Amino acid sequence: MNQTPPTREDFWIHRWTLALGRQPSKGIRHSIGHDCAVLSPFSSQLDLVLKTDAVVEGVHFSPSTPAPLAGRKALARALSDLAAAGATPRAALLTAGCPNARSAPRLREAYRGLARLAKKINLPVVGGETVRTRQLLLSVSLLGTVPKNTSPNRSGAKPGHLLFVTGKLGGSWPRRHLTFHPRLAEGQWLVRNKFPSAMLDLSDGLGADLPRLARSSRIGFRIDPGQIPLSPRATPKLAFTRGEDYELLFSVPPPLTPALLRRWPFSTPLTIIGSCLPIRQGCHTGGLPLRGYDHLR
Amino acid sequence: MNQTPPTREDFWIHRWTLALGRQPSKGIRHSIGHDCAVLSPFSSQLDLVLKTDAVVEGVHFSPSTPAPLAGRKALARALSDLAAAGATPRAALLTAGCPNARSAPRLREAYRGLARLAKKINLPVVGGETVRTRQLLLSVSLLGTVPKNTSPNRSGAKPGHLLFVTGKLGGSWPRRHLTFHPRLAEGQWLVRNKFPSAMLDLSDGLGADLPRLARSSRIGFRIDPGQIPLSPRATPKLAFTRGEDYELLFSVPPPLTPALLRRWPFSTPLTIIGSCLPIRQGCHTGGLPLRGYDHLR
Repeated sequence: MNQTPPTREDFWIHRWTLALGRQPSKGIRHSIGHDCAVLSPFSSQLDLVLKTDAVVEGVHFSPSTPAPLAGRKALARALSDLAAAGATPRAALLTAGCPNARSAPRLREAYRGLARLAKKINLPVVGGETVRTRQLLLSVSLLGTVPKNTSPNRSGAKPGHLLFVTGKLGGSWPRRHLTFHPRLAEGQWLVRNKFPSAMLDLSDGLGADLPRLARSSRIGFRIDPGQIPLSPRATPKLAFTRGEDYELLFSVPPPLTPALLRRWPFSTPLTIIGSCLPIRQGCHTGGLPLRGYDHLR
Repeated sequence: MNQTPPTREDFWIHRWTLALGRQPSKGIRHSIGHDCAVLSPFSSQLDLVLKTDAVVEGVHFSPSTPAPLAGRKALARALSDLAAAGATPRAALLTAGCPNARSAPRLREAYRGLARLAKKINLPVVGGETVRTRQLLLSVSLLGTVPKNTSPNRSGAKPGHLLFVTGKLGGSWPRRHLTFHPRLAEGQWLVRNKFPSAMLDLSDGLGADLPRLARSSRIGFRIDPGQIPLSPRATPKLAFTRGEDYELLFSVPPPLTPALLRRWPFSTPLTIIGSCLPIRQGCHTGGLPLRGYDHLR
């Protein structure tokens, strides 16, 4: 007769999932510990939103970054994309890459940081896996929902629409890229009230993300560098090139602008930084460089 | 006036997503090229199934593995888990980790292999991202559906239930772990016809996966080594320890067994390898070792 000892992987997964704490269970049929997570269906009035995003040690955080902040960042980045879709996060899957047993405590701490943010926004972590990688890696996949047919994308901006950003830009380093608050409430409110014609989150800097919006929408644009809301000690150039601001960039038709400015219910700053132009009129930035952080340069 | 050159990341993403081919578009509102993928809701009679799974160079495939087979494996492994849930895959997200520009052609080939399998089963790849990692890595997240309240998990096996496996075991190396066919049709048929009381896919070998089922269901079991269906040149010990068979392991109440054997419509072999016991009677394997591939040993 043999015993059935858990494998070391089972043991770790059990230890780590403890760190995820008690999971909200409404609508979750199967969760961690089964081959797949199974959720009961959402309202037929809700579209489904999917996003995956990863952070890697040496790229998105450093070996000296406190592990709980690395874990927090992994989830917060993916949430920022859901914010840009106006979506409500409903379930998360977590893939953890870990070099060896010696890095296990650091990974467990990263789980804790991620779990704390998930709990705060009542987001269940319903599954995931661990793999062996040469560097610490956390990949988060999210399922969210958004009222049917309302989620903006990058391609709806038209000449004449005004360009808005939330928050202040250029101040992501050294710490804010680890502690930022994804603009979930702001994104949901904007979409529910149908203000944005196009929206994305600023992950790679205005200099990279603005061109993405422009290319998708087939427009040009004019930015007024003096209007860019800046973090302490930031410059317009940093707002264009540094990345990791995780604020929302969106376009709004001019007739909706007064209502947006009047009704904006958040303490988060809201700023007009420029406007969309016909594509043939090109892209004008007052000399600021149109490039951003490029992951693969 | 500045130009808006795509970043190198944008360029690659564009090149690679071309390899994904024309995407089925029914029900997909936003796909690759936006912050999130947005899908219209499925029937309210369907539960949602979530799974994420990664393959890493040096762990799940080697530097000499043809890249299209590595990409294929990344998707096939995740599909195997959906098969164990009886689910139909509906949308995939792909995270690619890539060391540098020199490895780009290999990654593009991996995309091609993945895209070929996705196309074959009519599965749209709706989003994803690229990150810089020290070794090639492909992580696939899947959204699937299964008729409401039907998906089995690992915890429903009871003493007396018979233990079945599909296919033949122990022959995953050197090649089958790259070319196996996930048992999607078999899993969907089993669940639709309510045969399994518990089910999982055999990824780490019977010696690791059987104890998982047993622990979840709080049962013991008795396996007859002579009944294990073996691949050419495999041994019962390899079936227990080698892993990567990606066949289905499931338990069935005895009254349902004759109908299952009579109605099984597939050419895939279906074999009874043992039965479930009360937990106090323990785990009997005729001396075969209860352990499997452990990712983190």
